[in-house]
Amino acid sequence: MKDLGYYNGKYDLIDNMVIPMNDRVCYFGDGVYEATYSRNHNIYVLDAHIDRFYRSAEKLKMVIPHTKEELKEILRDLVKKVDDGEQFVYWQLTRGTATRNHIIPDPPMPGNLWVILRPLKVKDTYKKIKVITMPDTRFLHCDIKTLNLIPAVMASTAADRAGCYETVFHRDGRVTECAHSNVHIIKDGVFRTAPTDNLILPGIARANLIRFCGQLGIPVCEEPFSLDEMMAADEIIVSSSSAFCLAVEEIDGKPVGGKAPEILKSLQDIAVEDFTKATDIKA
Amino acid sequence: MKDLGYYNGKYDLIDNMVIPMNDRVCYFGDGVYEATYSRNHNIYVLDAHIDRFYRSAEKLKMVIPHTKEELKEILRDLVKKVDDGEQFVYWQLTRGTATRNHIIPDPPMPGNLWVILRPLKVKDTYKKIKVITMPDTRFLHCDIKTLNLIPAVMASTAADRAGCYETVFHRDGRVTECAHSNVHIIKDGVFRTAPTDNLILPGIARANLIRFCGQLGIPVCEEPFSLDEMMAADEIIVSSSSAFCLAVEEIDGKPVGGKAPEILKSLQDIAVEDFTKATDIKA
Repeated sequence: MKDLGYYNGKYDLIDNMVIPMNDRVCYFGDGVYEATYSRNHNIYVLDAHIDRFYRSAEKLKMVIPHTKEELKEILRDLVKKVDDGEQFVYWQLTRGTATRNHIIPDPPMPGNLWVILRPLKVKDTYKKIKVITMPDTRFLHCDIKTLNLIPAVMASTAADRAGCYETVFHRDGRVTECAHSNVHIIKDGVFRTAPTDNLILPGIARANLIRFCGQLGIPVCEEPFSLDEMMAADEIIVSSSSAFCLAVEEIDGKPVGGKAPEILKSLQDIAVEDFTKATDIKA
Repeated sequence: MKDLGYYNGKYDLIDNMVIPMNDRVCYFGDGVYEATYSRNHNIYVLDAHIDRFYRSAEKLKMVIPHTKEELKEILRDLVKKVDDGEQFVYWQLTRGTATRNHIIPDPPMPGNLWVILRPLKVKDTYKKIKVITMPDTRFLHCDIKTLNLIPAVMASTAADRAGCYETVFHRDGRVTECAHSNVHIIKDGVFRTAPTDNLILPGIARANLIRFCGQLGIPVCEEPFSLDEMMAADEIIVSSSSAFCLAVEEIDGKPVGGKAPEILKSLQDIAVEDFTKATDIKA
């Protein structure tokens, strides 16, 4: 299939798929999601994504109608129905289907499982990016990967219209993360990244970068940094499940980074190698 | 019809209605909405709701595919298809249908128009309510009536499970509003309500109460108040499009209010009368 949409056991081309009007996502954005990539029908870092998916659902008291093993099986079966090139693998759980009411039924109904698969390349790791900055006006639950994404939509669009790849958010003088990525800096040989509190998503690509730093002997400091510290950093790195380790060359029109190219390249190489190795064998 | 769901020109019983998987509401909660009541097929304070709907859409750069007059005509036609008793009249605009991508297409596509009608009584104005309080962890765009409502869902559910009607949010010592209502106090004969900044929705019921205060000669003060001021107020009033002027008798289990019953009743009477008169004649 050229792409695939799945909803509670039914699947078809995405454009043919419909969902009930009373799915709670339609009125409240009431759901959580995950996104990663597959290649050769292997889904990259699936366990980490599944674990985070369950944590998000748990924090919002949503009921996933499958065990982790069942869900992994569903995803592995579905990716075999699309091509074996790089595929965007997206799934979400919405709280269920019911007459519109803020109040969640008691006991809660089982959630609805959605999957989207479509051909999409992982972003070129070695192509530098430009970003803009913006005050972080999002809610205080950014650790949960929810479908309440209007601020991310507006910030991503603002970046796009400015000819940039991402928007870096800052709150109370501290850099938090980007609209759909985490952001880190390298300064004096140290990889610095905000701690995983309620202001940022605990990115899987972020966790991978920390793991790679361990393998490469790069010290890691999980402490917030300011806008000024970011502007003066040796390298600024943006990471997400679609973009493993992108270097920022311009922030709000000012040139930045480029002062620790060896460390940067060592991280990029290991990130690309990790993805390639994990997805090399045909599943 | 016993209820009605409408999507871009098609309508049926809500349970029969489906929408495309790629409506952006499904991935981003990317939409804005309005809700009011009809009675005798008359839609209450329709102009005010339509104006706010356009303001919400404008703030998020969404494209409404109808003029205000066309939209009013659509709503007036649809309410005639359901019974003439009290009906919940709900409509929303989602940003449109497209492959999942945070970035809004340029130029933006026209939005999708949804309508939901179902029999529902306006809440009994004279029945006192209990509420709980909770820190306000929502985003900083509460002036826009969006479908990013997970915090409202969680707070409404917490109130329900505590046997209460609403949750009063507070942020930095100031009372903002409730999960799906505004909140006001009466103290020493003055009606006090938070100003309409980005931390609260500019409620139509709130605007009505201010109008009624003018008619009754009750002074109005649009300044924020604290949790302590709320606990010590003569009356605490919760208002929304489904609940015009409810008095709070208990906050977090502590008895409150009840010290300005005449002012309270004069506001409740005029609110009920306003709705009744506006919807008395068969449309």
